Amino acid sequence: MAMDVTFLGSGSAYPSPHRGASALVLRNEGDCWLFDCGEGTQTQLMKSQLKASRITKVFISHLHGDHLFGLPGLLCTVSLSFPPLQSQPSVLPESHTQSHSSVHVDIYGPRGLRQFLRVALGLSASQLLFRYAVHELEPTADQCPPEGQIGFMTAPPTDDHLHPQEVLGRTISLCQADGCYTLLEDERVVVKAFRLFHRLPSFGFSVQERERPGRLKTQLLKQLGLKPGPDYGRLKNGGSVTLEDGRVVTSKEVLEEPVCGRKVCILGDCSALVGEEDALRVCRGADLLIHEATLSDEQQERAVEHGHSTPSMAAALARACQAHKLVLNHFSQRYKPVSQCKEGEEENVLDLKKQAEEALEGTNVEVLLAEDFLTLTIPIKRLTK
Amino acid sequence: MAMDVTFLGSGSAYPSPHRGASALVLRNEGDCWLFDCGEGTQTQLMKSQLKASRITKVFISHLHGDHLFGLPGLLCTVSLSFPPLQSQPSVLPESHTQSHSSVHVDIYGPRGLRQFLRVALGLSASQLLFRYAVHELEPTADQCPPEGQIGFMTAPPTDDHLHPQEVLGRTISLCQADGCYTLLEDERVVVKAFRLFHRLPSFGFSVQERERPGRLKTQLLKQLGLKPGPDYGRLKNGGSVTLEDGRVVTSKEVLEEPVCGRKVCILGDCSALVGEEDALRVCRGADLLIHEATLSDEQQERAVEHGHSTPSMAAALARACQAHKLVLNHFSQRYKPVSQCKEGEEENVLDLKKQAEEALEGTNVEVLLAEDFLTLTIPIKRLTK
Ligand SMILES: [Zn+2]
Ligand SMILES: [Zn+2]
Ligand SMILES: [Zn+2]
Ligand SMILES: [Zn+2]
Repeated sequence: MAMDVTFLGSGSAYPSPHRGASALVLRNEGDCWLFDCGEGTQTQLMKSQLKASRITKVFISHLHGDHLFGLPGLLCTVSLSFPPLQSQPSVLPESHTQSHSSVHVDIYGPRGLRQFLRVALGLSASQLLFRYAVHELEPTADQCPPEGQIGFMTAPPTDDHLHPQEVLGRTISLCQADGCYTLLEDERVVVKAFRLFHRLPSFGFSVQERERPGRLKTQLLKQLGLKPGPDYGRLKNGGSVTLEDGRVVTSKEVLEEPVCGRKVCILGDCSALVGEEDALRVCRGADLLIHEATLSDEQQERAVEHGHSTPSMAAALARACQAHKLVLNHFSQRYKPVSQCKEGEEENVLDLKKQAEEALEGTNVEVLLAEDFLTLTIPIKRLTK
Repeated sequence: MAMDVTFLGSGSAYPSPHRGASALVLRNEGDCWLFDCGEGTQTQLMKSQLKASRITKVFISHLHGDHLFGLPGLLCTVSLSFPPLQSQPSVLPESHTQSHSSVHVDIYGPRGLRQFLRVALGLSASQLLFRYAVHELEPTADQCPPEGQIGFMTAPPTDDHLHPQEVLGRTISLCQADGCYTLLEDERVVVKAFRLFHRLPSFGFSVQERERPGRLKTQLLKQLGLKPGPDYGRLKNGGSVTLEDGRVVTSKEVLEEPVCGRKVCILGDCSALVGEEDALRVCRGADLLIHEATLSDEQQERAVEHGHSTPSMAAALARACQAHKLVLNHFSQRYKPVSQCKEGEEENVLDLKKQAEEALEGTNVEVLLAEDFLTLTIPIKRLTK
């Protein structure tokens, strides 16, 4: 039930000794999901308490190098710690006939990502000891200025040459019904992507736990004379049971409060939302909203020109979607970590925090600063209905 | 006249917090040349005294990720510190019509490297503020087992889609006359590549300074009554001058001893030389021979199976080519840097040094261990003829 986020890289543009390039890990019930993978992410992982080999899903917000260039190396290193495939991996590209259930790492990201990995892993002759699939999100033309479309346009749209360990992933288009991309839905969690405006098409990701029914009040059930068995199941699932004395026991009486699903939203680089209403709906009530703030409010013009945000811009989204906590992230490398800041210094990351806090006056939104190796826990919430 | 080598990554397979992935910088008269560029090289550069922006040539020994995956990010970061091009870089792929003199970074490496950079820089929409050229070396089929040829075979051999800042480089084939690849020849230096056997085609590089005539003994010239001018030039260039008294002054009398060109040889991953005689000739008398020693002598079978070398194998080459110093490099990540080794520990990198030293008994070859951020100076040598 533990859910936490660990920042591995909180810097923008390139990795520095003070701030790695973009990467963070969301842990949820033992699953490790990586969001963005800038150069050096595997080394940051080694320095953290996390294990690269536990990563089963990777989400790439956009194809800028500071979010992407660590991915081929990460996959190779995950493979080194991997038990050999039952049958040795074939060097022939026939694995895409495998069923998707054999896939160990699912990778989600914008169109072009398949091609990038095929060429990077292919030319380096990297054989992986597991299968991977790349699920490509089709951006829409309004996610970037016209220049930004060149990058992904050059990627040939053909899928005839898969990497030997690649299983062909899904191609995911914008859902016309809800204005989002549905990446994953199971009984525990729903993951959606929404559109951002940046120099290249960029995406935000929302990880939403489903609400879970409360636990059975077993003490009370015993008092009522009910024994474990079908009755328990019926009550757990919202049904009711009639006792021997004719009294009807409802689910509501014997269940603790339901556990509200937690929501974490992680945005890629952006200067604006695209399809604002839909994005706001997906982010509504986020427990943790992780948003870039590359430059300070004073530099908003420059920030926007480069497709980036400022603390006030991040705060405006946090306010609009009623987030609980806003984490500023992806700082210009001029901003040193708090522990290395000296008072009175010109470029102080604490000033960015203040700017967001001022923009959030009158709300209860808490503002935090991302820092490499910072872990934030998202506690379980019990709903009082 | 200063010439030195700084190791940025002395580890194999992947970058770790203790040993970066393969990279080293050779400095010669202000030029910075990078040999291999594993993931994280740009961060290692930042931690060192070197400046990424000074790098004007990059040599990639082979396309394995631990030697290559840092290159796209490095180029992007060099660009960030670069003065804008006189005319803003065009987004249209027309720069290959530019003359080669406009190229700021020359990159040398095996076939496939162009394609790798085009896709990595292209899909990430990385616009560089300088032009680069990739000079591809054509490997021969005997440089790797048949499986290794798959990687570079998948690279389409077409050059119709250059990166916007790419100037089409040379394609360099094995010279039948000397069994080597001539990458560069100017009045100061000759750079050649020679063939290595590895899981992928791999190369070694030899940087050979040309011999320079000694300085004029100006004190002596004054005594002889000669004044600066054409006579000085003639003597400097090996000619002779007749004094007023009829006496002939030869170049040899008035020149200090010539300065012998230094030679540094840097080998990529290998388990053997290909075209041994030619490679030995190129490496003959190297002042510094930098050779991988991924595993210990006890693990030679495993090392060779993976296309790697042991200390004794490196020593055998140092002995055969009469190198002055042998630097062991590219250690398995199990070998911690000397400063972190505890006595009696099982996997001690000092054992690798001992093995090479024992194999070199009876010679004067000095054995050194590469370590991240170690700088080795190659002193000027004056020849006594
Ligand atoms: Zn970024
Ligand atoms: Zn970006
Ligand atoms: Zn290697
Ligand atoms: Zn290798």
